[in-house]
Amino acid sequence: MAAKPLPIVSAFGWVPDFAKGRVRDLRVRWALEEVGQRYDTVLLDASKPRGADYVAWQPFDQVPAYRDSEVEMFESGAILLRIAEDHPGLLPTDPQARWQAISWLFAALNSVEPSLMQLVSVTLLHKDKPWSADAAAALRPFAQQRLKRLCDALGDKDWLASEFSIADIALIVALKNADDGLIADQPRLAAYRARAQARPAYIRALDAQLADFSDSPPQSKEGA
Amino acid sequence: MAAKPLPIVSAFGWVPDFAKGRVRDLRVRWALEEVGQRYDTVLLDASKPRGADYVAWQPFDQVPAYRDSEVEMFESGAILLRIAEDHPGLLPTDPQARWQAISWLFAALNSVEPSLMQLVSVTLLHKDKPWSADAAAALRPFAQQRLKRLCDALGDKDWLASEFSIADIALIVALKNADDGLIADQPRLAAYRARAQARPAYIRALDAQLADFSDSPPQSKEGA
Repeated sequence: MAAKPLPIVSAFGWVPDFAKGRVRDLRVRWALEEVGQRYDTVLLDASKPRGADYVAWQPFDQVPAYRDSEVEMFESGAILLRIAEDHPGLLPTDPQARWQAISWLFAALNSVEPSLMQLVSVTLLHKDKPWSADAAAALRPFAQQRLKRLCDALGDKDWLASEFSIADIALIVALKNADDGLIADQPRLAAYRARAQARPAYIRALDAQLADFSDSPPQSKEGA
Repeated sequence: MAAKPLPIVSAFGWVPDFAKGRVRDLRVRWALEEVGQRYDTVLLDASKPRGADYVAWQPFDQVPAYRDSEVEMFESGAILLRIAEDHPGLLPTDPQARWQAISWLFAALNSVEPSLMQLVSVTLLHKDKPWSADAAAALRPFAQQRLKRLCDALGDKDWLASEFSIADIALIVALKNADDGLIADQPRLAAYRARAQARPAYIRALDAQLADFSDSPPQSKEGA
């Protein structure tokens, strides 16, 4: 029997320093590490637009895109769900617990991450604008409120659902976009993040992402 | 045999005019209308914070939350997925087509909607700030680029995946947050939106949302 081909994850071969460790292929690498699934990477050049072939795979010309032996797809949240359906251990099996985890997966991506990304947008992408600081001050309470509600819901639990799941993977990587002050406001969140980032699978995934970055913009190449 | 209880969707009993027709329970109502599933609503008072009971159901104190005969959950994207797994007709059955649709479901919520919501945030929520217009002008190209890529991917297709799916429901409601100029830039998008909003299930869902709004802030009540 021929060996099943490894799943393929797209990632960048180089990014600016501020983006290292927060590019979203980290979510997919982490999930695959949690279930012990080896994978290959396609490394893209972040310094220029990718070609039509890549855009056909990832319509927004971002990472990650994903391909396994059956399907090709995009969006880190969708890929997490695919991996969780393919491998035990990333979603509870009890229906109520499973749908709570899926609710949190979407919440991480649609109710938490955007509140952080709009702050990143004005403080980082538009930091040279005269209105940047004022806009950041105005947008910050919304992010703070979202993180407070997240912490209230987390309570004394270790993980968002009844056990570690793809919701935690999505959320922890979303939190990469929160500055230190936002996290420090919520001690429980800091502890939750530390707990997640101590997982061996997270550490392996982060190491793998960082190891794939060249010091300077590379040419696109294939291979892990 | 006892009748199975109807699923329950939370919605607001009153919202300011600008929010009418764009509150996200519309996604859930639309999906349920597409599959011919009757439902009940719990109408909340948008003029004040909801109680601890509701926050236990919807941790961000938003709508929609959802309950069916088996599970209770939140986040419109997650609820769409739940409804699609429970009823035929909202996701293709072929694996590749199914995961493309799920990719687009997440893309609508994480790659398109946030680019529009941060514009809404500065132009609507912060319209009185002296920097509002400058910030909107700076953030607008990102939204334009996301909508252009969306249109490029849509091409000549009627729907995002191989057939109408929950991805279209998520995206069309996200587009409620795009101003007329953003839509007019992309004629294909305008046609796609018109096609979706001509569906009888969409019209019924919108009518039902609008019919549930009082003219002034009501007390919370239960019932459709």
